[in-house]
Amino acid sequence: MSTADKAQLRVGMVGYAFMGAAHSQAWRTVNRVFDLPAQVTMVAVAGRDRGKVTEAAERLGWAEAVTDWRELVSRDDIDLIDICTPGDSHETIALAALAAGKHVLCEKPLANNVAEARAMAQAAATARASGVRTMCGFNYRRVPAVALLRRLVEEGRLGDIRHVRATYLQDWITDPQFPLVWRLQKDLAGSGALGDIGAHIVDLTQYVTGQRIAGVSALTETFVKRRPLPSASAGLSASPAGDEAGAQTATGEVTVDDAALFLARLDGGAVATYEATRFATGRKNGLRVEINGSLGSAAFDLERLNELEFYDATVPATRQGFTRILVTEPDHPYLSAWWPPGHIIGYEHSFTHEMRDLIEAVAGGTDPRPSFDDALQVQLVLDAVERSAAAGSAWTTVDPA
Amino acid sequence: MSTADKAQLRVGMVGYAFMGAAHSQAWRTVNRVFDLPAQVTMVAVAGRDRGKVTEAAERLGWAEAVTDWRELVSRDDIDLIDICTPGDSHETIALAALAAGKHVLCEKPLANNVAEARAMAQAAATARASGVRTMCGFNYRRVPAVALLRRLVEEGRLGDIRHVRATYLQDWITDPQFPLVWRLQKDLAGSGALGDIGAHIVDLTQYVTGQRIAGVSALTETFVKRRPLPSASAGLSASPAGDEAGAQTATGEVTVDDAALFLARLDGGAVATYEATRFATGRKNGLRVEINGSLGSAAFDLERLNELEFYDATVPATRQGFTRILVTEPDHPYLSAWWPPGHIIGYEHSFTHEMRDLIEAVAGGTDPRPSFDDALQVQLVLDAVERSAAAGSAWTTVDPA
Amino acid sequence: MSTADKAQLRVGMVGYAFMGAAHSQAWRTVNRVFDLPAQVTMVAVAGRDRGKVTEAAERLGWAEAVTDWRELVSRDDIDLIDICTPGDSHETIALAALAAGKHVLCEKPLANNVAEARAMAQAAATARASGVRTMCGFNYRRVPAVALLRRLVEEGRLGDIRHVRATYLQDWITDPQFPLVWRLQKDLAGSGALGDIGAHIVDLTQYVTGQRIAGVSALTETFVKRRPLPSASAGLSASPAGDEAGAQTATGEVTVDDAALFLARLDGGAVATYEATRFATGRKNGLRVEINGSLGSAAFDLERLNELEFYDATVPATRQGFTRILVTEPDHPYLSAWWPPGHIIGYEHSFTHEMRDLIEAVAGGTDPRPSFDDALQVQLVLDAVERSAAAGSAWTTVDPA
Amino acid sequence: MSTADKAQLRVGMVGYAFMGAAHSQAWRTVNRVFDLPAQVTMVAVAGRDRGKVTEAAERLGWAEAVTDWRELVSRDDIDLIDICTPGDSHETIALAALAAGKHVLCEKPLANNVAEARAMAQAAATARASGVRTMCGFNYRRVPAVALLRRLVEEGRLGDIRHVRATYLQDWITDPQFPLVWRLQKDLAGSGALGDIGAHIVDLTQYVTGQRIAGVSALTETFVKRRPLPSASAGLSASPAGDEAGAQTATGEVTVDDAALFLARLDGGAVATYEATRFATGRKNGLRVEINGSLGSAAFDLERLNELEFYDATVPATRQGFTRILVTEPDHPYLSAWWPPGHIIGYEHSFTHEMRDLIEAVAGGTDPRPSFDDALQVQLVLDAVERSAAAGSAWTTVDPA
Repeated sequence: MSTADKAQLRVGMVGYAFMGAAHSQAWRTVNRVFDLPAQVTMVAVAGRDRGKVTEAAERLGWAEAVTDWRELVSRDDIDLIDICTPGDSHETIALAALAAGKHVLCEKPLANNVAEARAMAQAAATARASGVRTMCGFNYRRVPAVALLRRLVEEGRLGDIRHVRATYLQDWITDPQFPLVWRLQKDLAGSGALGDIGAHIVDLTQYVTGQRIAGVSALTETFVKRRPLPSASAGLSASPAGDEAGAQTATGEVTVDDAALFLARLDGGAVATYEATRFATGRKNGLRVEINGSLGSAAFDLERLNELEFYDATVPATRQGFTRILVTEPDHPYLSAWWPPGHIIGYEHSFTHEMRDLIEAVAGGTDPRPSFDDALQVQLVLDAVERSAAAGSAWTTVDPA
Repeated sequence: MSTADKAQLRVGMVGYAFMGAAHSQAWRTVNRVFDLPAQVTMVAVAGRDRGKVTEAAERLGWAEAVTDWRELVSRDDIDLIDICTPGDSHETIALAALAAGKHVLCEKPLANNVAEARAMAQAAATARASGVRTMCGFNYRRVPAVALLRRLVEEGRLGDIRHVRATYLQDWITDPQFPLVWRLQKDLAGSGALGDIGAHIVDLTQYVTGQRIAGVSALTETFVKRRPLPSASAGLSASPAGDEAGAQTATGEVTVDDAALFLARLDGGAVATYEATRFATGRKNGLRVEINGSLGSAAFDLERLNELEFYDATVPATRQGFTRILVTEPDHPYLSAWWPPGHIIGYEHSFTHEMRDLIEAVAGGTDPRPSFDDALQVQLVLDAVERSAAAGSAWTTVDPA
Repeated sequence: MSTADKAQLRVGMVGYAFMGAAHSQAWRTVNRVFDLPAQVTMVAVAGRDRGKVTEAAERLGWAEAVTDWRELVSRDDIDLIDICTPGDSHETIALAALAAGKHVLCEKPLANNVAEARAMAQAAATARASGVRTMCGFNYRRVPAVALLRRLVEEGRLGDIRHVRATYLQDWITDPQFPLVWRLQKDLAGSGALGDIGAHIVDLTQYVTGQRIAGVSALTETFVKRRPLPSASAGLSASPAGDEAGAQTATGEVTVDDAALFLARLDGGAVATYEATRFATGRKNGLRVEINGSLGSAAFDLERLNELEFYDATVPATRQGFTRILVTEPDHPYLSAWWPPGHIIGYEHSFTHEMRDLIEAVAGGTDPRPSFDDALQVQLVLDAVERSAAAGSAWTTVDPA
Repeated sequence: MSTADKAQLRVGMVGYAFMGAAHSQAWRTVNRVFDLPAQVTMVAVAGRDRGKVTEAAERLGWAEAVTDWRELVSRDDIDLIDICTPGDSHETIALAALAAGKHVLCEKPLANNVAEARAMAQAAATARASGVRTMCGFNYRRVPAVALLRRLVEEGRLGDIRHVRATYLQDWITDPQFPLVWRLQKDLAGSGALGDIGAHIVDLTQYVTGQRIAGVSALTETFVKRRPLPSASAGLSASPAGDEAGAQTATGEVTVDDAALFLARLDGGAVATYEATRFATGRKNGLRVEINGSLGSAAFDLERLNELEFYDATVPATRQGFTRILVTEPDHPYLSAWWPPGHIIGYEHSFTHEMRDLIEAVAGGTDPRPSFDDALQVQLVLDAVERSAAAGSAWTTVDPA
């Protein structure tokens, strides 16, 4: 289909930091790689600082920059609002956008707490009746190896799932002098490693197994209780404030978890361990998942995201073993649009695939996944984790959505 | 020192199955490889079945076979009793041997429950006053890569330990038709995956970190509740009973855990996840441990036991990474006695090293480790795990030894 | 610098298949990620088929499509010609572009034979006097891990280089029914695996070692001598012609090598093995290089292009080993512009980096590398390989440029 | 079968250094692990130094020590002579032993040159008529993963073999101060890396492919031409002579190759690269072999000798990949006698397996492999390599046996 004949999907984005840059790369690329029923227009990006948002718009490819996200919501020339801000503003923006009839893509975690997430899911349900679409940005579902793992489970190749083993290991705040950025403040971030990266492994494991976490036993830890106040930060890097002579800087309290660990039972009978931490020295982006079933197993590591390890217990025992599938074949999910086999893709491609699926859903009049309901359920799991940790690791049932 | 000049260490062994074969290989080899202050004599092996124990003695290199272990204890020509039986007989044999003034090496877990383990530790303390030595066979401490990891922690190269991540994954009973061998019966084995393989990772992680588990939150699961009664078994393999026509065989209840998962806090401030299971399809001997500290990390995998992954966070960031140390250099623990660098050793060598250290301790008049006290403490951790699992994963403090 | 203030670099591209798509992705992205002294304008793409080139222009982001590359060369609004066609047209296009005063980026291999490459290098030298820049697209130099390896060698961390071990293993024509695409025809492709992928490992190893191949001993092989004529092809995939009933299709002769193997001596004293093949079943993009020096070693695998294995023989022996450096740190080459540590990049990023360096060179008035001279020297190595293979593997000196 | 009923195999061994220790471990162990038709008796070991050989006999488990190997040959109570000396004495000892009607196991390489090897193969042929057995100790054939690879090829699972890629990489003489041990002297060792480790990959690849090397093109290099004379050495380690004040020590010429590289064609149509070196910094025992066939591929690495990587191109493309087979299952070659799955074995076990097969052949009246003819053919390949290297890498046909 030629571009001129296509429907338009006119996007406004709120926020332009790490996630905003990743989303922009995806919005710019998705129509260049995939043959889609709608053509993206990157209408405007919103941010509070006039200078910075203008610079970001130019660099990231947005036609306009505005300083109030409400302007995006109220404009007629925008169809979809892409929310890339910290979690404390998700609910407000999403509700306003939905009320204005805009489709909404919201970064994960959906909200900073269950109440907000419930309100958003409710608003999404209401909007759905008018054909408005909502999606939460758990982008790792769109890593081809993860999608392949999901497919293997669906085909029954792992049999009954018995074990889930999931970690998300990072190390960017092991230095006690790393400053108190927004991700370390509960009022802005909701939680620490739990919501930031723990949410990813909750969603990913539920997605690939098709099972939901029914109950948990948890503990959380904050290894470094106070940190220097930040001077400036961007993405996951930042510098502490302070004069050049190294004078003592002011410090603030870290109000979120550095690490969250929990055991879980899934509703299909599997038992599981989960761990999310920012103190795993040497692990930069260590999202690793292993699934053991009665007929096979699979393992995934985000630092080698083009690979899936698959163990097929149905082949003769002398030839069994974990097979390193290089997930770059044309018949692998999303891959026919990219490069020849063995030419690997990167982290950012998960967003491009997310946008592809979102565009197809919006254009096709179907509801994309993960829905706000899916994301609310993840929030309920995070909530159960926090309640269990506060109650001496007591077994805690995940509330129904 | 020539053999003729050396002290003798005259050994009697009880049990000759999997562990008995591994210990025999070590007793036969240890003086051939290491230059030691005492020379081993393999005096006799005890077992209930006359024919089988006679065959075993001949095959494994024991001068005599006896059908009553009490005979070994009462003989004057035996200095040390090596207990390789299932856990239900450890206490009786050990107490008798210590009462007779014999040194005792006892396979792990020390006992099937805390009461037995306490009695054994008490008896060991009494015997120690008379120069009698006791040791529990947590052989993986003697894998060179594990000993190297311990050394790195002692040298401070990992800094403050924040995270421990330990699994022991096997898959030998994923088939529901696998029969009800002794390891699946609580009265004989004490517990299932927990005591059999979970005990190993409890001991190993406490050893390498120098920290002890203070409290736990746990869950256990038995995926297959009933199994065919066995016809015969050996080691970790067995066949179900039944006629050739495949008639329905009698079944019995599995009374132990198939899998045990727990969170823990160590007394030095680390938080930890532990998992022991016999249902991890594709993982044959997946003892894997990762330790994250403030200055570095290390990871070990028993299926590649000649390797240690070490991350040194003190080198420049552009050259940081996990270093795969091939632990076969002459300056690595135990290795100067073996082959040139790169010529790997196997599972059985851990027992040869265990015997080396035991012989040196006995000859040198020092107490070998892990002591019965160490092993009692492991038993107390296992007990806390079982109590937590029975109490809805409630946080459970490990009792003091 | 804001976009409005920047110099423009107006690009015209010839060819829009696999390489054209990869280059387009890079041209679209480079100013979005890197802060550069010039702004790219994607003016036009040229191709012979009106419909296809028009579709390609729209999809890949070129403002115009033209059916004669000469039009690009003659236009005033184009500064740089990017040549992405098969090798048989490189010389003609490059010479015309240089004569018209355009900068030229030419895909590798520079040409199909030495005579053409010499003519191009000569033209580049002439044009350089007028400030016209030329570059050959050996994109793998711009993989961050490769650039890091080069830096380690330059810093002396590997010491004197003794061994180079390089393979480029693919398997896309192992099926004898794979058709006779242009890459298998000598008149279009110049050579087979040798020029297509062997050229990459010649350039890459010379680049990272700083040494040049002085002489070679070679053999080449064509395992499948005749193949079906193709119906259609794209990138590295294609279908054989033939009716649906599977009737016998016409076949043609494969006139290039399927595999090329050679030994080499480098001018700095290293000895080397090289192998390029399209018959290494299971290896999709197996460009692997290992360098052994007197002080250290390094190994790279394109299928895991975010990693570099580095062995430092100067650390204590007990901690030596190959370190898996995850080359995603901000201080690693090219990485400060991308994602946080551990968030990997893909194959296409090598082109984005290539464009970055090219833009900086053109804007800064310096000559980018690899130059046409560098690429001519690679061609001379390929020529020596072919001559040696034709002469019974006799030692063959590489001709001087 | 009980020991008393078994035939005896009475062994005399010549040499007690690295290989002697490895063989002794195997002779001591083989009847303890495998159920065999004959029982080994370790009668005597021969060595020139009275004190050292006596100590070795005691340590390694030989009943007697003698200072003249001729005594072993002439004794009636010895059935088999095991030759573990440097290559310069192989022919003399073997011929004497065969003339005396002893079975002979000879370490590899069979001899220091083709003439000696031919004489030995001829003597073996003569002796065979009298039921005397001969075997050459290419022990790596008995690594279970290698035997499994052979089995996969025999079953046709790799299809037609197209590529062989073999390296044997070590680094024990990268230090120029490492002394001039016997392995670096042509008159004692025959050649350097070529005969010592290159011979292993020649034998191993011919064994697993079932193809023989027909011709080669080679180069060899000696990076360090002179070295200090040694004071003492053992196995692969040694110290330079010299006074404690570090005075200049005498040096001698290195008369063997440090590295040997060659291309080859096998008689079944495969093309190959081979490399043997002692200068591959960081590679301790890097015997790595990859075989690519029309239906599959396999890769082996001696540093991970319990694993085989197998690629099966006949499974659906989306699930293809290299499968890491952990070769520790009871149905894998040699493994039913050892430990449960996942409990790995080491380097020395290859010798135990060698002895097992030798004992079975001798007791069963069949000729063990590799025969002296097999080993002569390896010698002919090495000879062709040396001739090609001396002739400017000219293609050199391997002489017929």
